[in-house]
Amino acid sequence: MATIAEIAEWTDGRAASSPFEGEITRVSSLDDADIHAAVFASSPDVLQSALQSRAGVILAAAKIAAESNDNRLVLVTDPRLAFSIIGDRLHPLAATSVHPTAVIDVTAHIGNHTSIGPGVVIGANVRIGNGCLIGARVVIEPGVVIGDRVRIQAGAILGALGFGYARRPDGSYLMFPQQGALVIEDDVEIGANTTIDRGALEETRIGAGTKIDNLVHIGHNCRIGRNVIIAAQTGISGSSVVEDGAILGGQVGMGEHATVGPGVILGGGAGVLSGKKLFGAGQVFWGRPARPLKQYLRDLARLSRGR
Amino acid sequence: MATIAEIAEWTDGRAASSPFEGEITRVSSLDDADIHAAVFASSPDVLQSALQSRAGVILAAAKIAAESNDNRLVLVTDPRLAFSIIGDRLHPLAATSVHPTAVIDVTAHIGNHTSIGPGVVIGANVRIGNGCLIGARVVIEPGVVIGDRVRIQAGAILGALGFGYARRPDGSYLMFPQQGALVIEDDVEIGANTTIDRGALEETRIGAGTKIDNLVHIGHNCRIGRNVIIAAQTGISGSSVVEDGAILGGQVGMGEHATVGPGVILGGGAGVLSGKKLFGAGQVFWGRPARPLKQYLRDLARLSRGR
Amino acid sequence: MATIAEIAEWTDGRAASSPFEGEITRVSSLDDADIHAAVFASSPDVLQSALQSRAGVILAAAKIAAESNDNRLVLVTDPRLAFSIIGDRLHPLAATSVHPTAVIDVTAHIGNHTSIGPGVVIGANVRIGNGCLIGARVVIEPGVVIGDRVRIQAGAILGALGFGYARRPDGSYLMFPQQGALVIEDDVEIGANTTIDRGALEETRIGAGTKIDNLVHIGHNCRIGRNVIIAAQTGISGSSVVEDGAILGGQVGMGEHATVGPGVILGGGAGVLSGKKLFGAGQVFWGRPARPLKQYLRDLARLSRGR
Repeated sequence: MATIAEIAEWTDGRAASSPFEGEITRVSSLDDADIHAAVFASSPDVLQSALQSRAGVILAAAKIAAESNDNRLVLVTDPRLAFSIIGDRLHPLAATSVHPTAVIDVTAHIGNHTSIGPGVVIGANVRIGNGCLIGARVVIEPGVVIGDRVRIQAGAILGALGFGYARRPDGSYLMFPQQGALVIEDDVEIGANTTIDRGALEETRIGAGTKIDNLVHIGHNCRIGRNVIIAAQTGISGSSVVEDGAILGGQVGMGEHATVGPGVILGGGAGVLSGKKLFGAGQVFWGRPARPLKQYLRDLARLSRGR
Repeated sequence: MATIAEIAEWTDGRAASSPFEGEITRVSSLDDADIHAAVFASSPDVLQSALQSRAGVILAAAKIAAESNDNRLVLVTDPRLAFSIIGDRLHPLAATSVHPTAVIDVTAHIGNHTSIGPGVVIGANVRIGNGCLIGARVVIEPGVVIGDRVRIQAGAILGALGFGYARRPDGSYLMFPQQGALVIEDDVEIGANTTIDRGALEETRIGAGTKIDNLVHIGHNCRIGRNVIIAAQTGISGSSVVEDGAILGGQVGMGEHATVGPGVILGGGAGVLSGKKLFGAGQVFWGRPARPLKQYLRDLARLSRGR
Repeated sequence: MATIAEIAEWTDGRAASSPFEGEITRVSSLDDADIHAAVFASSPDVLQSALQSRAGVILAAAKIAAESNDNRLVLVTDPRLAFSIIGDRLHPLAATSVHPTAVIDVTAHIGNHTSIGPGVVIGANVRIGNGCLIGARVVIEPGVVIGDRVRIQAGAILGALGFGYARRPDGSYLMFPQQGALVIEDDVEIGANTTIDRGALEETRIGAGTKIDNLVHIGHNCRIGRNVIIAAQTGISGSSVVEDGAILGGQVGMGEHATVGPGVILGGGAGVLSGKKLFGAGQVFWGRPARPLKQYLRDLARLSRGR
């Protein structure tokens, strides 16, 4: 629950001099809004609808709402961010809780305000920090280390054995030892049914603040930087590196020992060959194999023109 | 158990005037057939084998079997459909059952003749209709609404939080509220380990009769129409629309806010860019980005010819 | 625990005439090595580091280490394979164990030295051989047959219903019977959250020694040969065949009724059209649709040159 004054403070926003005196308990869409709801408006059209809604707080960009004197307005720089901040703040921290159906090794350590869902399996010597949410049926294999405020959605598998083999002279395969670590740093979020393998001899590491969507695969020994975005069904082969702030679209594929540099953006479905290194903050690469966007578009145009 | 007369009735078929008087209990391949089994024949060659098999009923197209007077024959328009109908009818409706290891919130409502498998997790305020089969270890997050005769295979995750973020000025990300609904309409079937996200503020909806294969991802706010086919490992990003009767091959990727029109067919691995709209019932699109089949084939040929 | 003499015997290697007399209990990276650890060196540079490490055994190729007289050396043909052999041998066979939270049908049969993890679900008439490891929350549907020394990682779903439908005249779909078998032969390894469907009327079969990575999908009626490698997120549609010794990179897609011949290599992301057959042991195919590597590279070069 929050007053408009509190909301303005949380969002670095500016409320009316005599703001609406309601109590805000939730964020909502315009259609679902009542006087306890906060909504946001990023465009003049949406602002008009918001002003006609029953919402108790309207977060709006100063440049589109400065002339309105509706006492429910809070003027902010980035309304979508402000809305997200309020949604986040209105969710109270979970109580420490472990569902009785979770299977947790006695040597595992679980922090405060961390919630462990039904059917979760946590192996020996796992460490989980404070303020984490571990969804239903997540499996955390032995020795995995998880920081604070990590959110793992249902069905994810953390610390599986990597896919590395030696070939015998007769053509059969023998698993190369897969006994390394997996470290998930603070504020990481991991999607449903995603799989992240432990290191073979060293470690796999997911940097702080990185967000990973559903059904993503990250292989052994990978090093993912901080504040990286990895959309659904992307697959990253063993020993690859994704540097801080990179953005990977859905269904991206990276071969082994490849590198995506800081701030690089890979379009959906892009493919990075084994050993390849792509650099350039803010640069977009697309296609298979991934090329700079300009070249990719030129190639496409040439193909369809036939020259 | 069924007589040939019943089978003819179920399939709109025509039996011999003095049909074989066996009792049919199951469908089978030709090799496994005995006198209690129904088989089907769509081609003259298969028909010959079927006539030599021990099957108790042979479903065959009138145009290939009209001249045979084997009293096990049932002449139908579409033998493969007839065979499927019989397989379906011979499975009795499940008794209402909830496996003791399922974890079901007290506020959830579960219909009649619905079977809930081992290790299933069902959250608060979930509603599940009649005649549903919920496979082992399925997770249904709070508030998800599921119609009648829905079949969900093992490991699927319904109603996970979507992948939407606001970026802070320091480059870190904050989850945009993901508190919307997920509605699965009647007769939907969902494959193993598939993930479907709930809406952010509004809803995600899967239309009646739609069939979804394994390891598919459907993002927040998507609207999937009726009788849509979505093959394995396809990924549909947030806020996209797939209209009635569309067919998506395996490993298709759709960006955000894209539309696939009614009856459109996307070949395996096709990619639809964010915001793109593809229309044309029965039209096949292929490639990344997806183009009309004719153009795609021309592009491929040109590429390999080198001009 | 092993002596250097035992290690030399396991690996067909040659130890020094007066070998170091330590007891080796584990394999490790160079950085983590102590006198109980075995390490390996495939290059002169790594050999120098290994000789300076505290490792108790150094597995090295004869051609790079023949002139060193360090008494910790064991000279072998393939150091990486030798290292894998030792890692494997130092893991004692698991005791037969079934976690109390596993749900196992009374008609299922489980072999000796087989370990069943937490939350596993095993259906009626399943048979599992000796020396298997079944990870947490794996689901094995009724009737699936699993050989000896099979390792299945967490979350995999074996024996789900395949994705085959008949279309009714009104455009709706009815599932074609999916009642066939799934056979997993000896020494197969299956990754986390992978799904393998049972046959429709016949069987799906995974040949001995085949290794399958995470989030792979294998459809109904597929026949996968022996010693096949299938990397993460690859999808194989129904009724396709992959012959012995083939290697499929990550995110490969195969249509229905396609064939990948013995020893064929498919690069990451390659696509094989329905009905297509690719042959040639050791031949590399790449791209969508998959072409011989030479042609694929020529096509790419031509595209980027613009002629």
